Amino acid sequence: MHAALPQQAQQEGGSNDVPTQRTTRDLRRVDIHPDHWYPLAWSREVKRGKAHGVRFAGDPIVLVRTESGRVFALEDRCAHRQVPLHAGVVDGESIRCCYHGWTYDCTGRCTDVPYLGRERLPNGVRSYPCREEAGLIFVFPGDPLLAAEAKFPDLGSASDKAYKTRRFGREVKCHYTFMHENLMDMNHQFLHRRQMGSMRARSLGRRRGEDWVEVDYTFAREAGKQPIGEALVFGQKRGTRPDDGNKDVMTIRTAYPYQTLKICTKDETMVMDLWIAYVPLDREQRTNRTFGLLSIRRPKIGPLLDAAWPLLVWFTERIFKEDRWIVEREQEAHDRQGADHNHEVFPVINELRALLVERGAPPRDASAHAGPDSRRVHLIQPLTDLSAS
Amino acid sequence: MHAALPQQAQQEGGSNDVPTQRTTRDLRRVDIHPDHWYPLAWSREVKRGKAHGVRFAGDPIVLVRTESGRVFALEDRCAHRQVPLHAGVVDGESIRCCYHGWTYDCTGRCTDVPYLGRERLPNGVRSYPCREEAGLIFVFPGDPLLAAEAKFPDLGSASDKAYKTRRFGREVKCHYTFMHENLMDMNHQFLHRRQMGSMRARSLGRRRGEDWVEVDYTFAREAGKQPIGEALVFGQKRGTRPDDGNKDVMTIRTAYPYQTLKICTKDETMVMDLWIAYVPLDREQRTNRTFGLLSIRRPKIGPLLDAAWPLLVWFTERIFKEDRWIVEREQEAHDRQGADHNHEVFPVINELRALLVERGAPPRDASAHAGPDSRRVHLIQPLTDLSAS
Amino acid sequence: MHAALPQQAQQEGGSNDVPTQRTTRDLRRVDIHPDHWYPLAWSREVKRGKAHGVRFAGDPIVLVRTESGRVFALEDRCAHRQVPLHAGVVDGESIRCCYHGWTYDCTGRCTDVPYLGRERLPNGVRSYPCREEAGLIFVFPGDPLLAAEAKFPDLGSASDKAYKTRRFGREVKCHYTFMHENLMDMNHQFLHRRQMGSMRARSLGRRRGEDWVEVDYTFAREAGKQPIGEALVFGQKRGTRPDDGNKDVMTIRTAYPYQTLKICTKDETMVMDLWIAYVPLDREQRTNRTFGLLSIRRPKIGPLLDAAWPLLVWFTERIFKEDRWIVEREQEAHDRQGADHNHEVFPVINELRALLVERGAPPRDASAHAGPDSRRVHLIQPLTDLSAS
Repeated sequence: MHAALPQQAQQEGGSNDVPTQRTTRDLRRVDIHPDHWYPLAWSREVKRGKAHGVRFAGDPIVLVRTESGRVFALEDRCAHRQVPLHAGVVDGESIRCCYHGWTYDCTGRCTDVPYLGRERLPNGVRSYPCREEAGLIFVFPGDPLLAAEAKFPDLGSASDKAYKTRRFGREVKCHYTFMHENLMDMNHQFLHRRQMGSMRARSLGRRRGEDWVEVDYTFAREAGKQPIGEALVFGQKRGTRPDDGNKDVMTIRTAYPYQTLKICTKDETMVMDLWIAYVPLDREQRTNRTFGLLSIRRPKIGPLLDAAWPLLVWFTERIFKEDRWIVEREQEAHDRQGADHNHEVFPVINELRALLVERGAPPRDASAHAGPDSRRVHLIQPLTDLSAS
Repeated sequence: MHAALPQQAQQEGGSNDVPTQRTTRDLRRVDIHPDHWYPLAWSREVKRGKAHGVRFAGDPIVLVRTESGRVFALEDRCAHRQVPLHAGVVDGESIRCCYHGWTYDCTGRCTDVPYLGRERLPNGVRSYPCREEAGLIFVFPGDPLLAAEAKFPDLGSASDKAYKTRRFGREVKCHYTFMHENLMDMNHQFLHRRQMGSMRARSLGRRRGEDWVEVDYTFAREAGKQPIGEALVFGQKRGTRPDDGNKDVMTIRTAYPYQTLKICTKDETMVMDLWIAYVPLDREQRTNRTFGLLSIRRPKIGPLLDAAWPLLVWFTERIFKEDRWIVEREQEAHDRQGADHNHEVFPVINELRALLVERGAPPRDASAHAGPDSRRVHLIQPLTDLSAS
Repeated sequence: MHAALPQQAQQEGGSNDVPTQRTTRDLRRVDIHPDHWYPLAWSREVKRGKAHGVRFAGDPIVLVRTESGRVFALEDRCAHRQVPLHAGVVDGESIRCCYHGWTYDCTGRCTDVPYLGRERLPNGVRSYPCREEAGLIFVFPGDPLLAAEAKFPDLGSASDKAYKTRRFGREVKCHYTFMHENLMDMNHQFLHRRQMGSMRARSLGRRRGEDWVEVDYTFAREAGKQPIGEALVFGQKRGTRPDDGNKDVMTIRTAYPYQTLKICTKDETMVMDLWIAYVPLDREQRTNRTFGLLSIRRPKIGPLLDAAWPLLVWFTERIFKEDRWIVEREQEAHDRQGADHNHEVFPVINELRALLVERGAPPRDASAHAGPDSRRVHLIQPLTDLSAS
C-alpha cells in the first residue's frame, strides 16, 4: 500500500547517498540506556518534608526530601503490599508507608514495622543514586555500581550569571528518539513558519565521535520579517534579506543521552545555550518527559532581557507546542504501522539514528522482566526452536 | 451459559425454516469489499485550498481541494516521516507536508523536497481514484485498475428537483453489517414505539440477485395516531386504523455495498427515497461513518415542505439516534461474546447475511498486514502445521 | 530490581513464623466461587415495572420487578440479537426486548415473537435463582441446582429494631481479595490517622474453621482525642489514654464469601455490627461492587442517634474513601508487576489468603469461556504438549 519502503530496505537498495544502516533493530523499540544520570524532577517539585512520585521507563521512583533538606530516591513501592511510598509520611530522615506504617531510610532499609519486633524486620526496597544540580534532581536508574564513575552532564550556562535561564518541559507522547531527530533536523523550520516566517537552514557539515554527533547550520530568511521573539533569543536584530551576511552558527549536538543547541555569533559569542534531556516514562518508552535549560546571554543593558522575558517564554512555548504536536503524530504513525517506515534522506539524521541505536540499551531479554506481556512472549518463544527441529 | 446456540450451530440443526448458512465466517469479521466507490466526506467539509483527513478501514486518506477547486485523494502520510499530510499546506495544485515541506501532486508523486536537489527526489505516496457527486466525495480504496469499470452508485433522487434532500449521517460504533440488518428488518418498529406509535410491519416477500437482496413491506397502525413527522415523510395523512386500505409499499434493498429504502403509494408515486452507505473507519471495522441522502417528494404546495423541514429533521434524527444506540449495543455484545451468537429467525435477514458474506472482502491473510497484532498472529500460525505433523 | 521476593518464594524460605502457603496460584487471579448468594442491587434500585442491568464477574444480568412487585433475574441478553434486556419494557410479569419485542417470562422462556407463530418460538435465555432480603436483591450465579441448599447469609442486625442500619457501598477498582485483607488487617489504622488519630491495634489471636477465619482486636489510643464520629459508632465516649481499661473487642470474620465486623463492649453488648459483601463486576474480577450493612445499636435516648446520623455517614464515608484509594493502588501495583509481590508478615492475613484460595473458584479452563482472550490462550496451549514430545 505504501510507496516508500521501510528504512532498512531503502538503505540496502543504496539509492540514496546516506550512511548505510546495518542494524535490523527498529529505532523506536530501542530503550534508552539506563547507565546515565537522568533528571527526574525539578527541585521545586520536591518540597521539604514531602515525597514525590516519578517514573523512569516504567519503574516507579519516589523522591524524598527529608526534614534536613537532602533528597534521596527509592523504589516507589512498599516492600509489604507494593503501594506507592510517595503517599507516605516523611518522618525525620525516613519515609513511612501510608498504609501500615512500614518505615525506610535513605538506603531503602526497612527500619520499622510498628506491629513487629525490631529483630524480625523484613527486607527493604531498592535505592537509587541521587544528585541535585542546577534546580534538577538527577537519578542513576541503571547499575548503581557504575554511578560513581559515570560522566555527570555539563549543564551548559545554567549557572553562569552572564546568562538568564528558562527551565521548561512537558510530557510528550513519543519515543525519546523522535525528540533527538526533531531538534537536530533544522530543515523542519517549515513547521514553524507561522512563528518564524520563511527561514531556510543550510547545513555546514557534521562531526561524529564515539558517543556524539553534531551538526552546524546557518540560516537565511527567505521572506517576511524577523519576529520579535526570535530577536530576543539572539539579543539583537539581524538582517532579513537572504545571504545578507548573517554568519551566526547554530550547533546541535547529541552527546548521548543528552542534547544541546548553541548559537554563536561571528565574533564567537554564545548568545543561546540549550541543554535538554528526554526521560522515558513508561516501560514501552512511548512517552517522555522533557527537561530543558534554555540560557540566553544577557545584553549589556541587563533589565531589557528581564522585561522581555514573558515574550520569550510565550515564543518558545509556541515553538515547543508545534514540535510536540508533530512528534506525537510520528509516534502515532509508528503505532499504526507497527514498524519504522521513515524514509530519511538527510545524512546527519541517519548518523544520529545509528548513534541512538548503538548507544541505546541492548534488546530486552523477553523472559527477564515481569509484566504480563513478557510472559506471553515467553510462551510463544519456544516456537522458533520447535520449527527448527 | 447461553441457551441460544451461535448462528451456525442452529442453522445446521435445521430447526428453523430459514436459508442454511454454509459459511463458517463470523459475519462481524467480514471486511467490506474495497473494490467499490465509497463516500468519504461531504463536499462542504473539503474547502478550497484546504486538506481534510478521513479514514477507510484504518487507512488514512487525505482529501485535497486545490486552488482551482478540484479534489484529489492521497494516502494521508508523508513518505518521509509518516506524519499526516492533512496538516499540510495546499500550494496551487499540490499539497506540501507541514513538517519539512515535502510536496506531492495529485498523483502522489513527490515534486519537491526543499533541501534536496530535484534530481534526487524520493518516492511519493499512494493516490486514490476520486470523484465528487451530489455533494459527496467518493474514493475507490481498492485496486485502482478496477475503478474505471466499477459501477458508480445511482444516488437516487438527490439531484431530482421534484424532491427535497436531507444529507445526514454520523459515526456509529459498530460493524457495517449491523447497519444493513437494522434497516432491512422492519420488525424493529417496536424500537421506535415512542416516535412512531404502535406499528406492525408485514413482509410481502423478498427477491435476490447476484449482488442484491430486497424486501417489500406494508404497515398497519395497531394503536395511537400517526405522528406529524411521519406524515411529513409521506407528504400526506394516511389512515390510522389497522388495514384501513393504506397500500403504501416500502422497499428496502441492499445493492452491495449500498442500501436504499423507497416508499411508493398505491398510484406508484415514490414519496420517499433514501440512499445510504456505511463506511468502515478503523481496521477492525468496528466503527462506521454513515452517509445518507434522504429525498422527500415535494407536495403540490411547495413551501409547505420547506416550512416543515425542521420538524422532519428532528423526527429523523430521533429515529436515527435510537437505531444508532441499538446497533452499538449489538457490537458491544459481539465484542463481549467474542463471536456471533445471533439467532436470526427472519428469512430475509438470513438472505442478507449470506449476501454480505459472499460479497465481502476475502479473509485477510494474517501475514499480509502491518500492525503489531498481525505479527502476533504470524508467530502463532505455525502451530497448526506443527500439530498436524 | 525488587528487594522483596514474591509471596511464595518468601514462604518457602521459611524465614517468617507464618502459615506456609503451598499454593502456586496467584491470589489475585482466583475467581470468587459462584455457588453462593450474592447481592447484586439494592431493592430501591429496581422499581416496580422496571428492569435494571447488573453484572456478576462479567456476566450481564437483568433484574426485573414485575407489575405485581416480585423480582426475577435473567441473562441480560436477548436470545435474538444479544442486546440488553434491561432496555426493554416490563409487560405484566414478563420482559419484552426493546428491539424486536421478543418476550420472556420469569423462567427465561421466550413466550412471544410478535412476527412469528407461537408454535415456532425460539429458545429463551438463562434464568438465575433470585431472592430479596433486607433491602438487597440476591442472585445465585453458579449452578442453579445448588441454590436451594446453599446457605443464605445471616445479614446481621439489619432487621433488628435495636439497631439503626446504614446501607452503603461503591464500585471499587480492585480484586475482591484486597477488600477482605484490608478490613481484616487492623494494623492499617495508620492509613486513617487523619480521621481516627493515633490508634494502635492489638491482635488477641485468630481462629479458623473450614470456610472461615476470624481475629479479635483491642485498641489503644496512642495520642490525640477520640473523634466524635468514632464516639458515635460506639454510642459512648471511651478512654483516650493508652491502656486506660477500654476492653472493647472487635471481631472481624471472613465467612466465605462474606465478611463481618462486630464490636462488643466488656459487658458483651454488641454496639456495632457490619455485614459486607464484595461482588466482582468484570470477568477478570479487577473491580468489585461493595454492599455493606452497618448497624449501630440505638442508645437509650433514641433520637440522639438519628440526630447524629449525618455525622456518622460523613465519618464512615471518609474512612471508606481512604480504604478504597489504597486497595486500588494495590490492584494497580499488581497490574504493573504482573504477579503478587506481597510480602505479608501478619499470620492472620496469611491464614485469610489461604482460605480465599481454597474456597475460591477452581482455575478457569482456558478453552471453556468465550472471549477473544480465551481463544488466544487456546491457540497457545498445545505448546506444552509439543515441547513434551
